[in-house]
Amino acid sequence: MTMVKHVAVLLADGFEEGEAVIFIDMMRRLEIKVDVLSCMETTALNSYFETKISADYTLAEKFEQIYDAIMMPGGPQGTDYLSKNSKVIEFVKRHIKEKKYICALCSSSAKVLAANGLLEGRNYATGDGLSEHFLDGNYLDKKVVVDGSFITGKGLGVSFEFSLTVGKILLTDNSALVDFLAEHIYFDHWPLLR
Amino acid sequence: MTMVKHVAVLLADGFEEGEAVIFIDMMRRLEIKVDVLSCMETTALNSYFETKISADYTLAEKFEQIYDAIMMPGGPQGTDYLSKNSKVIEFVKRHIKEKKYICALCSSSAKVLAANGLLEGRNYATGDGLSEHFLDGNYLDKKVVVDGSFITGKGLGVSFEFSLTVGKILLTDNSALVDFLAEHIYFDHWPLLR
Repeated sequence: MTMVKHVAVLLADGFEEGEAVIFIDMMRRLEIKVDVLSCMETTALNSYFETKISADYTLAEKFEQIYDAIMMPGGPQGTDYLSKNSKVIEFVKRHIKEKKYICALCSSSAKVLAANGLLEGRNYATGDGLSEHFLDGNYLDKKVVVDGSFITGKGLGVSFEFSLTVGKILLTDNSALVDFLAEHIYFDHWPLLR
Repeated sequence: MTMVKHVAVLLADGFEEGEAVIFIDMMRRLEIKVDVLSCMETTALNSYFETKISADYTLAEKFEQIYDAIMMPGGPQGTDYLSKNSKVIEFVKRHIKEKKYICALCSSSAKVLAANGLLEGRNYATGDGLSEHFLDGNYLDKKVVVDGSFITGKGLGVSFEFSLTVGKILLTDNSALVDFLAEHIYFDHWPLLR
């Protein structure tokens, strides 16, 4: 019997709601369990473009848990908050150590992972120009980059490619389901060509 | 001076959150004002894949207002609710009469517009097979179809193309901004080829 995969999405005020919601939606369509975790004091969050979205739990409530993957979206203020939150960094570090998947979209790969030296020289994708501010990691100008257990993506417009790539990696024993989903939602820019 | 465009997004329990949130996000990035309207009793909503999202207002609170465009996402239960809600149908009919844009993604074009005879024979896109249940409208197997003031799209995976098309139509005097946005978010499947 296949164990259901379990993913945490880490959100802070100012998160990019399109990136977060496409990922959550796509994971749940793939029957992957998702906990949406607020890294603020409460589950009520303010998003980048003021969509009223709440998390399922606070990070504090699920801090001891180990997930199969953790995901962070972009959003300038959101990634500022995540990057300077010592609990978030401790949580990410623990998942890196346990060889769980670290999925970072848009500015989060540069501003949370590279800024805190968590990439340890790995290849990664992020928004244009952001990599220049950090010494850690090797920026690649690609939509989605997979390097070991790190899956990074460029930004909002690659959210479907990013989510489907994460799905392929988590569901190695059922990757046909991921291709079926792409077709089912009429996303015809898949498989990813570059 | 250009008037700021104003769009209403109509949501009911079971709405497809990815389709709704990409559209809201993209409109706000284009500096189009968006009112997210709940067509239920309260602003708190249940989405198709259980993302915790609330509307800005109830439809009842904004019922008398005329918007430049109204948008409806898919989601099986969500479009059932919209379709059988006489206030929603009255609100849509008033906007059709006033020649405002009617933007319907996924099942909403078939199940809300065609089911209530609101397409009046126009060309439209929707999820596969749904058009077969309704006599109204002429289904086209395209990602996005524009016919007069009706803009319809196939499903979740064409959400960016759909939103950018609506942006192009609403911002006729500033369509370069729409192309800039596509590039800025790294959505390179634009302009729409079919």
